[in-house]
Parts: sequence; C-alpha cells; structure tokens
Amino acid sequence: MRIDLNSDLGEHFGRWELGDDRTLLSIVTSANVACGFHAGDPTVLRRTTEEAAERGVAVGAHVSYRDLAGFGRRFMDVPPAELTNEVVYQLGALAAFTRLAGDRVRYVKPHGALYNAIVHHQEQAEAVVTAVREFDPDLPVLGLPGSRFLEAAEKAGLRTHREAFADRAYTPEGTLVSRREPGAVLHDPEAIAERCLRIARGEPVTAVDGTEILVEADSLCVHGDSPGAVDIVRAVAARLRAEGIEILPFAEKYV
Amino acid sequence: MRIDLNSDLGEHFGRWELGDDRTLLSIVTSANVACGFHAGDPTVLRRTTEEAAERGVAVGAHVSYRDLAGFGRRFMDVPPAELTNEVVYQLGALAAFTRLAGDRVRYVKPHGALYNAIVHHQEQAEAVVTAVREFDPDLPVLGLPGSRFLEAAEKAGLRTHREAFADRAYTPEGTLVSRREPGAVLHDPEAIAERCLRIARGEPVTAVDGTEILVEADSLCVHGDSPGAVDIVRAVAARLRAEGIEILPFAEKYV
Amino acid sequence: MRIDLNSDLGEHFGRWELGDDRTLLSIVTSANVACGFHAGDPTVLRRTTEEAAERGVAVGAHVSYRDLAGFGRRFMDVPPAELTNEVVYQLGALAAFTRLAGDRVRYVKPHGALYNAIVHHQEQAEAVVTAVREFDPDLPVLGLPGSRFLEAAEKAGLRTHREAFADRAYTPEGTLVSRREPGAVLHDPEAIAERCLRIARGEPVTAVDGTEILVEADSLCVHGDSPGAVDIVRAVAARLRAEGIEILPFAEKYV
Amino acid sequence: MRIDLNSDLGEHFGRWELGDDRTLLSIVTSANVACGFHAGDPTVLRRTTEEAAERGVAVGAHVSYRDLAGFGRRFMDVPPAELTNEVVYQLGALAAFTRLAGDRVRYVKPHGALYNAIVHHQEQAEAVVTAVREFDPDLPVLGLPGSRFLEAAEKAGLRTHREAFADRAYTPEGTLVSRREPGAVLHDPEAIAERCLRIARGEPVTAVDGTEILVEADSLCVHGDSPGAVDIVRAVAARLRAEGIEILPFAEKYV
Repeated sequence: MRIDLNSDLGEHFGRWELGDDRTLLSIVTSANVACGFHAGDPTVLRRTTEEAAERGVAVGAHVSYRDLAGFGRRFMDVPPAELTNEVVYQLGALAAFTRLAGDRVRYVKPHGALYNAIVHHQEQAEAVVTAVREFDPDLPVLGLPGSRFLEAAEKAGLRTHREAFADRAYTPEGTLVSRREPGAVLHDPEAIAERCLRIARGEPVTAVDGTEILVEADSLCVHGDSPGAVDIVRAVAARLRAEGIEILPFAEKYV
Repeated sequence: MRIDLNSDLGEHFGRWELGDDRTLLSIVTSANVACGFHAGDPTVLRRTTEEAAERGVAVGAHVSYRDLAGFGRRFMDVPPAELTNEVVYQLGALAAFTRLAGDRVRYVKPHGALYNAIVHHQEQAEAVVTAVREFDPDLPVLGLPGSRFLEAAEKAGLRTHREAFADRAYTPEGTLVSRREPGAVLHDPEAIAERCLRIARGEPVTAVDGTEILVEADSLCVHGDSPGAVDIVRAVAARLRAEGIEILPFAEKYV
Repeated sequence: MRIDLNSDLGEHFGRWELGDDRTLLSIVTSANVACGFHAGDPTVLRRTTEEAAERGVAVGAHVSYRDLAGFGRRFMDVPPAELTNEVVYQLGALAAFTRLAGDRVRYVKPHGALYNAIVHHQEQAEAVVTAVREFDPDLPVLGLPGSRFLEAAEKAGLRTHREAFADRAYTPEGTLVSRREPGAVLHDPEAIAERCLRIARGEPVTAVDGTEILVEADSLCVHGDSPGAVDIVRAVAARLRAEGIEILPFAEKYV
Repeated sequence: MRIDLNSDLGEHFGRWELGDDRTLLSIVTSANVACGFHAGDPTVLRRTTEEAAERGVAVGAHVSYRDLAGFGRRFMDVPPAELTNEVVYQLGALAAFTRLAGDRVRYVKPHGALYNAIVHHQEQAEAVVTAVREFDPDLPVLGLPGSRFLEAAEKAGLRTHREAFADRAYTPEGTLVSRREPGAVLHDPEAIAERCLRIARGEPVTAVDGTEILVEADSLCVHGDSPGAVDIVRAVAARLRAEGIEILPFAEKYV
C-alpha cells in the first residue's frame, strides 16, 4: 500500500518568507511549487526546485491567478483564453528551473481561488486543462475528485490524480466543508493521522455529520505554513510509515 | 551577401498596444519578443510567437529587468544571482510559447536599460550569460560589438552575434552617440538605408565627427514603434533587396 | 437645461498611451481619472490632474480593482474590508495630485469590472461606499441609476449622481444591453447625439426592443479611446450646445 | 534630555508578514510606515496607521522605489521628475490612512536603496525633496547627517532631522561602515544600548578604527525584523529610560 503527501512550497517572495520549506521537503513526496503569479520570485523558484530535486521530491506546478497582493486567493473572472496563456507562462517558467535542477515538472495542481473555482467553473476548468495539454499532454494533473477540472482533464486524455485534504472536514457528499462553517478545519494531529491512514487504506472516514464516507485519493494534501501544521505533517507521515504504508510520489510512476 | 533585420516586438501589455507588429513581421527576419518583465503579457507572448512562426521570423528572447512601470528602461542594481534567475524565468516562459507555436527561441537579446548596462557592467553581463548558458548553451546571443556582454558570452562558449543600429549615430570609436547629444538619432529614411547597405556590405560608414569607421554587424536593429519608423524599416529592406543583399535571420544558421 | 459629459482619462501607464486625453479635455466637463490600480502611473496622474485643472474639467476618482494586467476589467472577489482599503488608497493618491494642481477630487466613479459588479454585488457596493464616506463624506459618487452602489451611497448619506451611456443600447427595463448581445454598442454619431439630447431634455429614448423609456441622468458617459469615438464625443457636444443645453460639470454645484 | 526611537513598520504585504509590529509599537516613538511601493498593501497601511495612532507613535512616510520584488533594496535609475511623482503618490496614499486614523503623516524618511542613493545622488535627493515640499512644506524629513538629501531639504526650507543607527558601526568620518565590511553590524544589546546612550547625551562614540567621533542625532533607528532585534530595541529603550533620557517623537514638536 502506498500514498503520496503533497504540500505547498516555495511560497516566499522577495524579502518575505512563508512556511518551513526545508522541514517539509524532508517529509512530503510532492511539492506544489508556486510559479510567480501568487508567490515565488525567480530566485525562490530556483532554490525550491533545487532543494526538491536533491531530496527526490516530485515538483508540481502550483499555477495561480495573477494576484500577488491577494496570494491567489481571490476569484478572478479571467477569460478562458487568457487563463490558458497565463498557465502556459507559469508552466514554462517553472520548467526552466526544474530542468536546471536536473529534473522536470511532474504534475500540475492549481492554487487557491483557481483550485476552488474550477471545482465548478467549467470554462476555467477547461482553460487550465487546455494549457496543460498544450504544454505537455503527458503531464498529470492533481485535483479534487468530482471536480469539473478532473472531469475535463480526463476527457482531454490527461492523467488525473485525486487528492484528499488531511486536515479538512468532509460533507456526507464527499466535498469539503466550507471554511466558514464551524469544524471545517481539524487540529488534532492524532485524529488527522488516523484519518489519513484510513484514506490511504481505502477505508471509510467520518463526515462532519457522522456519516461514513469513502474518500479516494492518490495524494494527501498537508499544509505546513505554521509551526503546528508541521507537527501535523510529521504525525501523519510517522503514523502512515508505522502502519506499513509507503509514502511515495504519485507522479513517480510516469517518469 | 546577407544581413538580418531585427526589431522589438510583442511590446503590448493587457489593454495597451505598442508598435505595428503585423507590419514589422512582414519585413524583419528576427523578432526580439518581450517576455513579460518590461512588456508582454502571456496572451501577447502567444500571439507574437504564433505570428512570428507563421511568417518564418526568428524569435529572440528580449529579456529585461522586472520593471513594467518603467518599461525596462531604468537601470536596476539587481544582484547578479537574482538577475540570472530573472533571465532564466523569462527564457522558460517564452520558450513554452515558441514550442506551442511549433518553433523555439533562437537567440537572446537583452532589452533597454539591461542592454545598456551590460555594455560596461561586468557582473550583470556575466549574470545574463550564465542564465543563457544554463538554459541552453546552444542559444546564441545578440549584442553590441565590444560590449562586456558579448565578451563574457564568447568566453563562456556561447555563439555571439553583433548588431548595428540603423538609425543611430556612431562615435569615431564605434559606440553609439548618447541620445542626449544632438544628432544621436537619424531620421532620413534614404540616409539610413544607405548606411545599412554599407554596413551589410562591410563598407565603412561616417561617424558623427565625419570619420569613416567600420561597423561590423550580423544584424541591423530597426525600430517600429511609430508610423515614421515603419517607413524607415521598409526603406531599409527595399534598399538592401534592390542591391542584392539577402535579408535572412542570423540565427537561422544554427537551427 | 444642463448636462455633464464624463469620460475616462489618464489611462496611460509608463511607456503605454491610451486615448486622446488632450482632445477629450477640451470637450468633456468631468474626467474619470485612473488612480494607478488599472492604469495611471504617478506621472500620468500628475499630468492628467494638471491638464484637467487648467481646462476647468472636474476630476473624479476612477477607482478600480488592483489589476493592471486586466485593466480592471476582470471581476475580482476582493473581501469587502480589503476593497474599502484599496479604494481609500487610490483616493488618497489621486487627491495628492489634484491638490498639487490647485484643485480637489470632485467625485468618485468606479471603473470597469468593479463598476459592473456593484450594480448587483451588495457587499462590494457597500465597501466602496464605506471608502468614500470615510475619505470624505462630502464627495459625490457617480453611478448607474438603480444600482446597489447608488442605493448604498444614498443610504450612507452620500450625494449620488446618475449617469447614462451615450453609445450603449438600453433594455426596456432601463439597464444596459450586454456587450455580448448584437446592437449593444451604437456607432452612428448623429443617432448617439440625438439620444443624448433626449436624455438631457428628460425626454424618453428608444430601448433595444423599440419601447420608449426614460433614462434619467446628471451626466452622459462618452468614450474616447479610439479616433471614431472622439468624433462621437464632438458630435454629442456640438448637438447639445446647438440645442441650447449647457455642458457643465455635475460636481460643480458642490464646490 | 530626549531622543526619538524610529523603526520600520507595516512591512507586510498580502499574505506575507514581516516584523513584530505590535511589540515595536509599544517601544518606539516614530514608525516609518511602508507606503505600498516596497511593502504595505492598503489593508496593512490601515492597520499600521491605526495602531500607531492608538499608541501615540508618530507616523512617517517610508517612501521607496517601486520595487516589491526587491523590497526597495535595489537602486533604480528613476528620472527625477518621475521619482518626485512616485513619492507624491505614496505620500497621498499614506496620508489618507493617517487621516482616517485621526492623525497625520508627521515626517518622511526614504527607504532602502533610495535612502542610500540620496546620500550622494544629487538629482534623486532633490526629487524627493521636491515631492515633500510640494505635498506639504511643513513636513519634516529624517535622514543621514551630511547627506545630499538633508542638504537639499534644508536648502528647500524643509525641517530636517538627523538620525543615527543603533546597531551599525561608524567610520572615523561619521558615515556608516558598509555592510560588506566585517564588523559593520553590532549585535551585543548592551554595547548597542551604551552607544545609543552616548549619542543621546551628545557624547562621542567609538568608530570602527577606535577613533572617538561625535554622532549627532534627533532620532535613533532601531530594527525589529528578527526576534534578536526586538531584544536590542528593548535593551536600548530600557537603558535610555534608566539613565533619565526621555524617549519622545522628534516630530512631536511641530504638531
């Protein structure tokens, strides 16, 4: 049995630091690397892709709306053709650095508001898919099961991978509980680790209303931009390993 | 006998247009395409690389300081390692679009204040060279003869190409007369065409003080961001052709 | 009888020019001046406010989402408190330049996607109103009759002014026909001038379906970012004057 | 006897935090507040000016080159007239928020590379002075004694204030030892506090070569963007108070 752990990395910009990349790179197997549109200047891209390559961590393109001031967390009504081009631009820039690091971009995972938008927004979902397909039809995408994004990607012949969120509560329908609802974010490392284990094993987990649901995932998304969060990542990784689950990049299979 | 004509293209940004790209693409053989740091949003990059590919015009990366507000025309004291990364980022982004257009980046020509700085600024000259060498050691560079940039590029084993400026006066030493001096910019299409012809033929031209000097060039830089300028470009191309000079991309030789 | 003519001005940025400001400033009585978020660098703000002051044209703050790449034309889901602060920032910056020009900001008109959003988006409408009220409760706002924006502004005790669009078709309900529909934009200068005259006189105009509707307006919005558009502006102004309508800034009354 | 303590504040941007503003605001008497060009988005400006006003800390405009990616630490060859306008823009934006906070901008202190440049760069020094004088001739400026900036400000009739750097070594000529030299930055809180005390008392301090020199200052600049740095600020303030030196804003005198 195996699972991937992915986390957002390279989210610094200029003088500003965010997140403990070094520690995360020693734990996770996939790094969603900011490409300069919501975070990540060229020097950060270089450092992050080099460190990921040294650690054997798979680099994914964490493509975003063009919104440094909002960290890519504000929905933007970007016309689809423009969005496609913005994603291609980011893929090209990141790919230059992974190549310098002796590696390549292994997958694409949209960031923040774009990620959320293309759960439902058909046109933007297709726009991102078009960008990936044009840039490299062998490049897998990582997204939310049931999202328009993964549906469109599959239809376009892209390899799709499903992710689950380690520290987020699920609705009985298997979608994420909105952050505006109470109990949307889990905080107890042991409870989170237990749930990750169940997902990795293909066992049902408990939704917010007590229902048992099945959350299928190739990768578990963990967050590391606070000290407590890093402890959770450690707890998840330790628990999975202790139970004999291998932690391996999902994208590795295609290299 | 042959010569290349290069011009700055793709210098639009969002709602803003600049220059008559369509006309220029029908005349020049090399297009210095803005990569997003001084001009050129992703949609502009796409359109420009597509149109260049359709026309058989060679695409060069017109890399710049990160300065949209100043159009890359203000010197910035960027630390060399950062500058290298900024250039790599731009090369990667542009390369994604040339690849989508069925082509590739054929050369690198720094833009504006960066171009001027690395005539003398050893560290920044080496920083740009490092970026090109790391990105693709087979990628030629285009620059001012005698510049630190071309010297450093040669030393690093890059292919170097020299350019002359069609509409600029030269000092007796073969450098450009500063724009702050009277007579720095030539305006008469016929006089400019005549001088271009002499440069293409390897014949001496008249410097600002009346001296005859030799300006060796593989490419003639022409500007097209005003209606009059386009007429000059036409006059230059017509004259060269009338005199049996072939207008061909310098970078073509290496494809 | 009197009416105001307003137009978007100062929409240049760095090297990029847009629109014939000089000509427009000789015709319109109110200038919606870009504040740096969708267009307008500090030097453009200075020049535009100085020229407006010289001509006696009232300066309004054309506040926008922070989106240079999209020219403020892409809806952004900015949290209301942030939006309020972004508008205050723009008002403060513009006000510095109008003060240097011996004048002051006379009104606020949201730009582009923000303008369209707050026709219906209650939270963002209130966020803009809060910014204006905090900055200067005596500052009038200009907007679409029936919009949430004008409603919220009125409720907050701000002076509100209604604008009509010279070159846009109206639905029978008095809202604008979407630009995606055929016939949304009028092109015939004489037809446009005729309609402006009717609006200025308080007479009904013909909606897109042939119905007669009343469009009440204190100001007519005219666009000048193309040569043809300037001709329309001239035709409108000439016609109004010929029929004895005074063209005066709506905001003048409160100085 | 009295002295002012100033520190850089409000240097966050969007998702990124920098420095412990809350703690610093409880110690220093003058806050150099970022205005959006090197750091500080509108929401940060609002929060910082509100908190400063609540604490009675004087707000200064920390004006900068337009360079978020470089945090204003890279020299930019901005033409003087443009620089003047960029500074006016920042002053206006900040002034809007200080006014909302029930206060006003009390002084201007250039940031980073601009600060360093105008020690010697006459044209840029005058450009900043012009901006301050145009914006408000009663606004004092804070700078390095002997700098072109303070000279130009004095000549223009502005109130000038001299600052010393708590944690920086001085040359025998009274200028700062370059950060590239060993021993340029002091780290021992007690030694730093002792030196601050001497400066506050008008007593000589020891230069890097052992010479005794006089460093006259109305304000001591302390940095707080690391945990250790905050301890130094505390030590300085404690020592000054213990020795009967009042810590008061220099700009207070003019209110």
